[in-house]
Amino acid sequence: MTTTTPDATGAPAGPTAAHGRLDEAEVRRLDRAHVFHSWSAQATIDPMPVAGAEGSWFWDHSGRRYLDFSSQLVNVNIGYQHPKLVAAIQEQAGRLLTVSPAFAEESRSRAAAMIAERAPGALNKVFFTNGGAEAVENAVRMARLHTGRHKVMAAYRSYHGATAGAIALTGDPRRWASEPGAAGVVRYWGPYLYRSAFHATTEQEECERALQHLRDLVMVEGAQTIAAILLESVVGTNGILVPPDGYLAGVRQICDEFGIVMVADEVMAGFGRCGEWFAVDHWDVEPDLITFAKGVNSGYVPLGGVLISDEIAATFDHRPFPGGLTYSGHPLACASAVASIEVFEEEGILAHARHLGDDVIGPGLRELAQRHSSVGEVRGLGVFWAVELVRDRTTREPLVPYNATGADAAPMNAVVGACKERGLWPFAHFNRIHVVPPCTTSDEEVRHGLAILDEALLVADEQAASR
Amino acid sequence: MTTTTPDATGAPAGPTAAHGRLDEAEVRRLDRAHVFHSWSAQATIDPMPVAGAEGSWFWDHSGRRYLDFSSQLVNVNIGYQHPKLVAAIQEQAGRLLTVSPAFAEESRSRAAAMIAERAPGALNKVFFTNGGAEAVENAVRMARLHTGRHKVMAAYRSYHGATAGAIALTGDPRRWASEPGAAGVVRYWGPYLYRSAFHATTEQEECERALQHLRDLVMVEGAQTIAAILLESVVGTNGILVPPDGYLAGVRQICDEFGIVMVADEVMAGFGRCGEWFAVDHWDVEPDLITFAKGVNSGYVPLGGVLISDEIAATFDHRPFPGGLTYSGHPLACASAVASIEVFEEEGILAHARHLGDDVIGPGLRELAQRHSSVGEVRGLGVFWAVELVRDRTTREPLVPYNATGADAAPMNAVVGACKERGLWPFAHFNRIHVVPPCTTSDEEVRHGLAILDEALLVADEQAASR
Repeated sequence: MTTTTPDATGAPAGPTAAHGRLDEAEVRRLDRAHVFHSWSAQATIDPMPVAGAEGSWFWDHSGRRYLDFSSQLVNVNIGYQHPKLVAAIQEQAGRLLTVSPAFAEESRSRAAAMIAERAPGALNKVFFTNGGAEAVENAVRMARLHTGRHKVMAAYRSYHGATAGAIALTGDPRRWASEPGAAGVVRYWGPYLYRSAFHATTEQEECERALQHLRDLVMVEGAQTIAAILLESVVGTNGILVPPDGYLAGVRQICDEFGIVMVADEVMAGFGRCGEWFAVDHWDVEPDLITFAKGVNSGYVPLGGVLISDEIAATFDHRPFPGGLTYSGHPLACASAVASIEVFEEEGILAHARHLGDDVIGPGLRELAQRHSSVGEVRGLGVFWAVELVRDRTTREPLVPYNATGADAAPMNAVVGACKERGLWPFAHFNRIHVVPPCTTSDEEVRHGLAILDEALLVADEQAASR
Repeated sequence: MTTTTPDATGAPAGPTAAHGRLDEAEVRRLDRAHVFHSWSAQATIDPMPVAGAEGSWFWDHSGRRYLDFSSQLVNVNIGYQHPKLVAAIQEQAGRLLTVSPAFAEESRSRAAAMIAERAPGALNKVFFTNGGAEAVENAVRMARLHTGRHKVMAAYRSYHGATAGAIALTGDPRRWASEPGAAGVVRYWGPYLYRSAFHATTEQEECERALQHLRDLVMVEGAQTIAAILLESVVGTNGILVPPDGYLAGVRQICDEFGIVMVADEVMAGFGRCGEWFAVDHWDVEPDLITFAKGVNSGYVPLGGVLISDEIAATFDHRPFPGGLTYSGHPLACASAVASIEVFEEEGILAHARHLGDDVIGPGLRELAQRHSSVGEVRGLGVFWAVELVRDRTTREPLVPYNATGADAAPMNAVVGACKERGLWPFAHFNRIHVVPPCTTSDEEVRHGLAILDEALLVADEQAASR
C-alpha cells in the first residue's frame, strides 16, 4: 500500500442489506425516542448511526467511512471486529456465557493468569469488574482496608469514572455536577511542563517540583491518614500527559516511605496504548494496584479489573473482601481478553504500537507542529498522542477556554468538523486533538489520517488568528 | 416427563473434551493463584469449577449436575445457554461488537425501544449501564439534578450494589466495611409483617404503619431536602419481601405530594422474576425511574440500565446529563436483550413464571412449611420465593443470627450442604433459603428441587432443635 487515499488503505466495503434489519431512519428514530445518551443534553444531539466497522475504520448506513483516530473512547486497541476475537466470543457464547463470581471457570482462570503474567512483579491476582469505574472503586476500597486509612490523593487533571467513588476522585469538570461528593479526596497537580503548576522550565525541574508538591501535601494532610495516591500512569483524556522520567519512581518512593498504596489507573493507558502491556513498564515502576479496562479486550465485551499485589491480596486472605458485582469475571468477557492477549503476541502489536509512536505519529505530528502556528505542543508515546492547540505560541493561551461550551467551543468544533468531513474521526478534548488510533493501524493509514489532520489544522490556524 | 429424577428432567449431558482446553485441576489452580473473588476471604474459599450449563442445570468437570434454584445470582431468568440468545450474540459479534455511547446503533435502538415499550406509562427512555450498581448510581444522579435536592431515602433491608453511591444506599451489612460513605442517605424500614418494625398484626396494618413511618421521616428530614425514595419493588436478597397491596401506591402518593422522585430498583425483581415485565406492574404503580439489570438478558452479557420518565428525561433536554460510561448501550449486550425479550414473548415466560408461583412453588412451599417445624414463613410470587427458617415458630428466633459468620452460621451451612449433596443449588441468605430458579424451569424440575429441599429441611429441623 503506497497511497493514502481511503480506497487504498484496506478499508472494507460498507454494509450489506443482510447486516441490518432496521434502516438508518428507523435506527435514528428509535434512538432519539428511547436512548438516553451519556454526558449529553439530549435535545441537542443527533447521534450518527454506525452500521459496521473493521480494522481501524467504521462506517454509517450509507457506506460513508471514517478512519478512527479515537479508537471509539480509546478502547478499540486491536481495531474493530478482529476475527480471532469474534471467533473466541462466538465459541464461548456457544459453550458457557455466564456463571457467578463464586465459581471457577476456565476462561476466567485463564484470563486472570494471562493478565497477571504480563503485569509487573508481585501483581498476581485479578479482581474483575465490568469497566474502569468499578475497577477504581474497588482499588480504593482495597487500599483503604489494607491501610486502615481513609484519604485518597488524586490529580486535578484526571478522569477515573462516573460512579460516586470514581467521580469524586476525578479531577476534571465532569465531577462538578456530582459534588458534594465523598469526603476524603485530596487533590494534587501532576507534572505538565507545558502548563507547569510549578513554574518549572525543564522536564527534570517539573519532575522534582511535582514530587516536592506531592510530598508537601502528604506532610500537611498527615501521612498516616492517606490510604492511596491514585494517578493515571500517563494522563489520558485530560491531556496525554506523559510523566517525566523519574516521576513515577518518585511517587513509588513516597508511597513506600509513608506506607501509602500506589494505585496506577491504566484503564486508558494500558494494554498496548503506550506500546507496553502496562504504561508503568515504560519506566519499570511497580504499583501496588493497577486498574484496567478498555484495551484489555478492546471493549468487545464490557470488562475491567484490578491487578492486586501479593501484599494487598494477603490482607483479604482471612478477612472477607467487602465488594463484588454479579458479573465479576464474566466468562464471555474473559474469553475475549484471553483471545486479545494472544492476538497482541501473535501479531507483535506492542512493538507495532511503539513503532507507530516512534517512527510515524511522533515525527508526523512534529512536522505538523512546524507547519501550523496553532499547534502549541505535540506529545505522547506509542499510539497515545495529543496536539495542543493555542491562540498564541508565546502566551500559550488555549484555542478554547478550559471546559468551553457553546460559542466558546466553536473553534474546536470547526477543527473537529474539518476532520470528519474528510473521513477522519478525531478525539477532541478542551483545546486538544488526541491522536489515538487502534494499535493495529497501519503506517499508511496513520499517514492518511495525519494528512487529513494537516488540512484540518489550517482551520485551527484560522480560528487562532480570528479573534 | 412424569418422574422427578435428574435423568428424567431433561438435564443435558456433561461436558465433552472439546469444550475444555484446561482440565479441572488447572482451572482450579489458576483460579486460586490469580482470581480474586467477590465478598470472600480468599484463603478460605474453594470455588467449584463450572464446566457447562443448559436450561436450569449446570455441571462441573466430572459431569456432576446441579438443578439451579439460585439462577446464579438471580439473573439467569431464561435459563442457561438459550439457543436463540446464543445465536443473537454470535450474530451481533460477527456484525458489530462495540461502538461508543455517542453513536446510534441498531441493537441499541431496538433494545431501548423494546424495553421502554414494556415499561409502565411514561417511562420512555433508557440509559444503559453495565450492571445494576451503575444503574442505581445514575438513577440517583438524575433524581438529585431533577429535583435540586440531595438526600435519598433507602431501606435498611436492601441491597443496591457495591460502588460508592450504591453501597451507601444499601441497607444490609455489606455496606458496613465501606462506611463512612456518602452523606445524604436517610434509612427507613419497609413493610415486613413477619418481623414488623411497627408491631403490626395484619398486612393492611403493616402497610399503613410503614407508610406513616415513611411520611414521618419525610416530615422530620424536610421534604424539600429529599430527592428520591429508593426501594426494591419486591425486596430481593434481603428477604423476598413482597409489599402489601397499597404500599407501592402509598409511596407513589407521598412522592407526588412532596415532589420526590420514586426510584424502583428492579435489578432483581424485574424481567419475569415476579411474573411480570416489571414487579410494579403487579400493583399497577408507575415509578419515575426504574433500574434494571440481571433478567434483562439473563446476564449473558453485562447489561443494566435506568428507565426514565418523560418528565425527568426533559430535565436533560438542554442541560447535559453529567454521567456516562464507555460501554453504555454496548451493542453485544443490547443484542442479547432484544433476543431475550423476544424469547419471553415467544415462549410465554411471564405466564409460566406466574404459573410456577401460583401452582407449583407456592403450594409446594406451603406444604413443606406444614411438615417442617423449622419453617417460620414462606412467601413470594412468580419465581421469587423465600423460606424463612427459625428455631422456634412462636418466638420467630431466626435459625442463625443476623449476618452470622463462622460457627454461628453452621446451621444454615448444613442445610445448604444437604441441598448441594443432593444436586440442588440453593440461594441462601442469613436464615433464609430463597427459591429462585430460572423462570423457564419446568414444573417437573421445580417439583424435583422441592423434593430435595424437603429432605434438606429435615436438617434444618434438627439444627433448630439442637441447641
